[in-house]
Amino acid sequence: MDMERFERQVRFILELDKEKNILRRTHLSDNGRRENDAEHAWHLAAMTWLLSEYANEKFDVARTMLMVLLHDVVEIDAGDSYAYDPEAQKTAHERELAAAERLYHILPEDQGTYLEDLWKEFEEGKTPEARFAHVMDNLQPMLLNDSNEGNDWRQNGVARSQVEKRNTHTAEGSEQIWEYMKKIIDRNVEKGSLKPE
Amino acid sequence: MDMERFERQVRFILELDKEKNILRRTHLSDNGRRENDAEHAWHLAAMTWLLSEYANEKFDVARTMLMVLLHDVVEIDAGDSYAYDPEAQKTAHERELAAAERLYHILPEDQGTYLEDLWKEFEEGKTPEARFAHVMDNLQPMLLNDSNEGNDWRQNGVARSQVEKRNTHTAEGSEQIWEYMKKIIDRNVEKGSLKPE
Repeated sequence: MDMERFERQVRFILELDKEKNILRRTHLSDNGRRENDAEHAWHLAAMTWLLSEYANEKFDVARTMLMVLLHDVVEIDAGDSYAYDPEAQKTAHERELAAAERLYHILPEDQGTYLEDLWKEFEEGKTPEARFAHVMDNLQPMLLNDSNEGNDWRQNGVARSQVEKRNTHTAEGSEQIWEYMKKIIDRNVEKGSLKPE
Repeated sequence: MDMERFERQVRFILELDKEKNILRRTHLSDNGRRENDAEHAWHLAAMTWLLSEYANEKFDVARTMLMVLLHDVVEIDAGDSYAYDPEAQKTAHERELAAAERLYHILPEDQGTYLEDLWKEFEEGKTPEARFAHVMDNLQPMLLNDSNEGNDWRQNGVARSQVEKRNTHTAEGSEQIWEYMKKIIDRNVEKGSLKPE
């Protein structure tokens, strides 16, 4: 065993632990507490396997599971940027690039480069894997939120147009899942948890 | 889209959410709060990819990632059974079998059977995938605990012999990682966080 290599891997594993303390705006089902990044990523990885049959195109399920497992690593330094907070979104990208530079380089070069490239692929959203990963990333909080009567949208004063804008590319990953999500959106507008404009 | 099929999948996804509320005895690094099952499983899946090179045998990394992601699903009904609580361990298996029966059958038959078999494979520990999954399942809390000066062992009055017994098969999955873990054990006996007998 190359101890220097192994210790860099262990250091990264312990660094990852911090994702468990990064809170998202989404609440757990049964109107629970706020969800953290690690829980969210775990849920996405399981969903990627469970729902892969609905992707528009053939894609590499295993690589996508790894992609979603680690898609929020940069938030260890950069924090979570709420999808419907335009100010946070504006500065997020720069902070996240700096975070990637530090975090992935804790690892041995080969693994760090691979994972940094995988994160950039996710961010760019141009491959079948990245497209499906984004479907999962948008569907998961919507399922939790819908199970909570849309309280996350209600509390943050979110409008239908914002949700639709965030989901501009969802149909490119899965038309079938996007059809289902549109019904969730309609239902939440009808009951007033999502503003209609 | 077969709506009955999709809705069973969504129901399972929402059921999984409950793993985020099942607390383990392990504490997060920096002497944080107790860890939950979802966070633990997420950590194992990332570690499986990161540390696969240390396995004794070639194994299917993707299948093992799925295995560890869902290895604690039965605890939604059966609860967490602390590794060093003999009473809980005695009754755990029966409770977990009943839990598997209910939980995996929320899913469409093909997926439910596949995942139930994968969980049984993990429990039996007889394949290269299951052997490596158990290495991860034992290493992860040890890394967190060691980063916290062994406080989890100290607080539960755990002895070296108990940790060694739990790790009877670890070397069968990865001799190299087991060598590293033995050093962690020695260090914690020396500083008194693990009882020496």
